[in-house]
Amino acid sequence: MAGRRPALAIDIGGTKLAAAVVEPGGRLVTWAQVPTPHSLDSGQLWRTLDALTGRVLEAARITVPSELAGVGAGCGGPMEWPAGVVSPLNISQWRSFPLRARLQKRFSGIPVRVHNDAICVVAGEHWRGAGRGRSNVLGMVVSTGVGGGLILDGRVIEGASGNAGHIGHVVVDPEDGPVCACGGRGCLEAIARGPALVAWAQGEGWRQGQPEATAKDLADDGAHGHPVGLAAMRRAGQALGIAIASATYLCDLEVVSIGGGLSQAGAILFEPLEEALHAHARLKFVRNLRVVPAALGQSAGLVGAAALIFAAERYWTGD
Amino acid sequence: MAGRRPALAIDIGGTKLAAAVVEPGGRLVTWAQVPTPHSLDSGQLWRTLDALTGRVLEAARITVPSELAGVGAGCGGPMEWPAGVVSPLNISQWRSFPLRARLQKRFSGIPVRVHNDAICVVAGEHWRGAGRGRSNVLGMVVSTGVGGGLILDGRVIEGASGNAGHIGHVVVDPEDGPVCACGGRGCLEAIARGPALVAWAQGEGWRQGQPEATAKDLADDGAHGHPVGLAAMRRAGQALGIAIASATYLCDLEVVSIGGGLSQAGAILFEPLEEALHAHARLKFVRNLRVVPAALGQSAGLVGAAALIFAAERYWTGD
Repeated sequence: MAGRRPALAIDIGGTKLAAAVVEPGGRLVTWAQVPTPHSLDSGQLWRTLDALTGRVLEAARITVPSELAGVGAGCGGPMEWPAGVVSPLNISQWRSFPLRARLQKRFSGIPVRVHNDAICVVAGEHWRGAGRGRSNVLGMVVSTGVGGGLILDGRVIEGASGNAGHIGHVVVDPEDGPVCACGGRGCLEAIARGPALVAWAQGEGWRQGQPEATAKDLADDGAHGHPVGLAAMRRAGQALGIAIASATYLCDLEVVSIGGGLSQAGAILFEPLEEALHAHARLKFVRNLRVVPAALGQSAGLVGAAALIFAAERYWTGD
Repeated sequence: MAGRRPALAIDIGGTKLAAAVVEPGGRLVTWAQVPTPHSLDSGQLWRTLDALTGRVLEAARITVPSELAGVGAGCGGPMEWPAGVVSPLNISQWRSFPLRARLQKRFSGIPVRVHNDAICVVAGEHWRGAGRGRSNVLGMVVSTGVGGGLILDGRVIEGASGNAGHIGHVVVDPEDGPVCACGGRGCLEAIARGPALVAWAQGEGWRQGQPEATAKDLADDGAHGHPVGLAAMRRAGQALGIAIASATYLCDLEVVSIGGGLSQAGAILFEPLEEALHAHARLKFVRNLRVVPAALGQSAGLVGAAALIFAAERYWTGD
């Protein structure tokens, strides 16, 4: 029966490539991931992805596309949407890569839909995670970058070019903030992305001369009481709280879910976040906002990619 | 014919009460306004509004509600929406005033719809003004306060409590900005609202000891080269540009229309606004944003209130 067929879900980011076979209810049947191979060229990267999807399909004993309800893929932005021509900031070998067309050629005869990875994350969290049952949700990913996607009035918001939800470039410190990769100054991402926190901490004397030190190390050191680790998490939390306050006023949100590596830092991140949020979000209508770690964790993007197929009426407005 | 009946439109703000009879195409047939009477009690204020609507209906020779397609009203927020129980910040005598129910009682048998005044402004600008033909529009009012309403993906955005679009409380200077009436610090409104600009300018020596000096005087002096007037408009423009950059990243906007008294300051406001906007909104997808003065001027709110009746499929999602 058509209604029982699973979907193939794909999540393409600067850190990892992931794929899964997903049931209509959102459960992952089989899944696999590999580190994103930055040394390969564009064609080799495509073949790596193709081999990965082949593995999860084989594990689920799916041999022809018609056994699938469709293919949903989230990919790092920016992209031409809904054409699915992608130029992920953190995957330099793909520039104007026709991901959707390539997937459609590979999986002919079934729907193939590609969206921003952050939109897949918010779709996943809204469909089956922390935003379930709510109509106004911002789903964030705080990791190598800071991204986001918006559900407002119960539907995914695309915006003019399919790029709505870019909370990473909401301005939180226009005067004294660091310059951002986008060219602006004081964007949330310029302060709170993992590598920026590491650079800031090393400037404060933390693990100087260790180029391999990560934001996870920094959070771990903070959790063990290292003052620079704590200060770095406070710095990130405050920036997140200010940006979330702005977003909540603008979009009248109910839930903000935060995924990505940094979201696992716990109270040393979330306490200063809540403090800054409550210092700025004061009117009655913004006081009920809940900020929570993403309920689906690392699989939110895959579940949301499947939602592009299984709950298209809410999460897919493209052709 | 039902399709030809006009609507009664009402716009209730802290400065003025306005009413109009509006054709299905958006043209104002008759209109009138009075200063908001702050010295009257709640009941007297209601009767003032009732007399005003009576005047415009009489001028249009409308004697019974059934000659109208409906009544649309914009009112200063916050409000319980869609119940239309209003507590406008700048109209202290109305607290939990059942505006929609009172209007429905007065105009029985026809649709009566009440929304945030800023949402009416963006609905008007989208329906018949600067946002016509666009799908992603922020309509702002910069005056005694700084408000806004959002159209995204072609529909008005309500948010969790009908308060989406509150750009006045987007944070633009969290460290050094002035405290806002909302209790936060560095909100756009705390810097760019007319009275805040006047207070700042008087602190810089402009028209000290003249309590009646207005933001219009300040803009006029700026236009004639007064350095404090120019600096005040630059201060407002920069804050607006930063907040608009944040809103554009978050919502992937095409057009921002700015109405309200301050929007008439012209280049001395809009040039620093564009400068700050372009310093912060750098990624390709935000570079096409157009920021324009509201095309409908002071009547945007009335035209948008009529749109709640005539184009309800886009602008009214309440009961």
